[in-house]
Amino acid sequence: MQKEIITAAFLMIGDEILSGRTQDKNLNFLAKSLTNFGIQLREVRVVGDVEDEIILATKTLCAKYDYLFTSGGIGPTHDDITSAAIAKAFDTKLILHEEAEKILKQHYGDQINEARLKMAYIPQGASLLDNPVSSAPGFNIKNVFVMAGVPKIFESMYQAAEKQLMSGAKIKSLEIVTDLTEGWLASDLEKLQQKYQKVAMGSYPFNGGTSLVFRSTNYEMLEKSHNEMVEILKKIKSNNISNIA
Amino acid sequence: MQKEIITAAFLMIGDEILSGRTQDKNLNFLAKSLTNFGIQLREVRVVGDVEDEIILATKTLCAKYDYLFTSGGIGPTHDDITSAAIAKAFDTKLILHEEAEKILKQHYGDQINEARLKMAYIPQGASLLDNPVSSAPGFNIKNVFVMAGVPKIFESMYQAAEKQLMSGAKIKSLEIVTDLTEGWLASDLEKLQQKYQKVAMGSYPFNGGTSLVFRSTNYEMLEKSHNEMVEILKKIKSNNISNIA
Repeated sequence: MQKEIITAAFLMIGDEILSGRTQDKNLNFLAKSLTNFGIQLREVRVVGDVEDEIILATKTLCAKYDYLFTSGGIGPTHDDITSAAIAKAFDTKLILHEEAEKILKQHYGDQINEARLKMAYIPQGASLLDNPVSSAPGFNIKNVFVMAGVPKIFESMYQAAEKQLMSGAKIKSLEIVTDLTEGWLASDLEKLQQKYQKVAMGSYPFNGGTSLVFRSTNYEMLEKSHNEMVEILKKIKSNNISNIA
Repeated sequence: MQKEIITAAFLMIGDEILSGRTQDKNLNFLAKSLTNFGIQLREVRVVGDVEDEIILATKTLCAKYDYLFTSGGIGPTHDDITSAAIAKAFDTKLILHEEAEKILKQHYGDQINEARLKMAYIPQGASLLDNPVSSAPGFNIKNVFVMAGVPKIFESMYQAAEKQLMSGAKIKSLEIVTDLTEGWLASDLEKLQQKYQKVAMGSYPFNGGTSLVFRSTNYEMLEKSHNEMVEILKKIKSNNISNIA
């Protein structure tokens, strides 16, 4: 039986995001990809390269949502502690994964060394996530997908992960862009939201107007409510023609 | 007495970030600003427009860190529920704040309405954060600063908030960019990290090399460890000149 709603969380791991050195590029990619696939991203956390924080966030998020995706901290240097922390979160050990070892030895040839081999150690019971960009794999353990932080690699690992995901009903969205600011339409929008409870109506101001985004898995209701809102906006405009700047 | 380390968290509130509709621009601004000011951003969360989630995250983060900054959900529409949720998190009520009311009435003139006045309701005991961009203020309650999600407004509210913040010791950072990939330097870097425990050494791969970022509040140790690393990199290169691609 297919679940109607599948949820996910995203845990970014890395001091560089929190210090401002690095501008995150993965969240928006993951959010869009999951939405398109039929999974609802419900929560995101960013923590530093701190074992206890990674363990705490992992335990909380993988229990609360269907899937957890992580980014960062799986490279060869001493500050890459994600794999060890995830192993601890699942009360298991890091082991040398034979296939990962083979991949890395093939990639690095006689330049393989201890640091590079560190990337072949993954939690016992985990399976690999392909990395066509730079070979060192990510991994999947239970409902957690552990991926690299470098955007190109993150994206390619997500493609590998997606093949293993269940999808729920897809949320479709319709947008209305108006030059009315939020204060003009808030009251009517709220009434419409009460009428169509299965449609999530978001209102996003920008300089010079408002973008209204209606989202639902019920496409009939979505279209109906959208069309009503278009008519409501016309009415607001004609009633206030002398007041609206 | 000045505290040596001041910590903060950031809570982004908004379905639009989680659905991928909106690309966040505030995290990097806040991270850089706090770092420059002498506050350590330790954790970030993103939750949707869901009251229970906002309350839970607010309670957790404002207890764990010195400051909490929030973004989003303080406009006039029905999906703007941040102020009410923050009031509940602090077991207090929303009240009409007289000064906020005055500001909004002045801004909107005879176009003031119920929706716009909603933005003058803030938790009892909170004080206002100026919004020179679009007038509707943010607010500060206890150690929480509640700000708008629109980047321009978020930034101007942060400027207002910063005047009220304590700063700790500033972290200075030094970066070394090398064309060596991480696997070449990981082992020496780890030894250096063990030698200089007061310097946080981060290693960030990019296509064609590695960026090493050393960060510390101890500027003497920072410089010393940085200079040692520069020499180490020279040695690695000359020892492996025939192997490095």
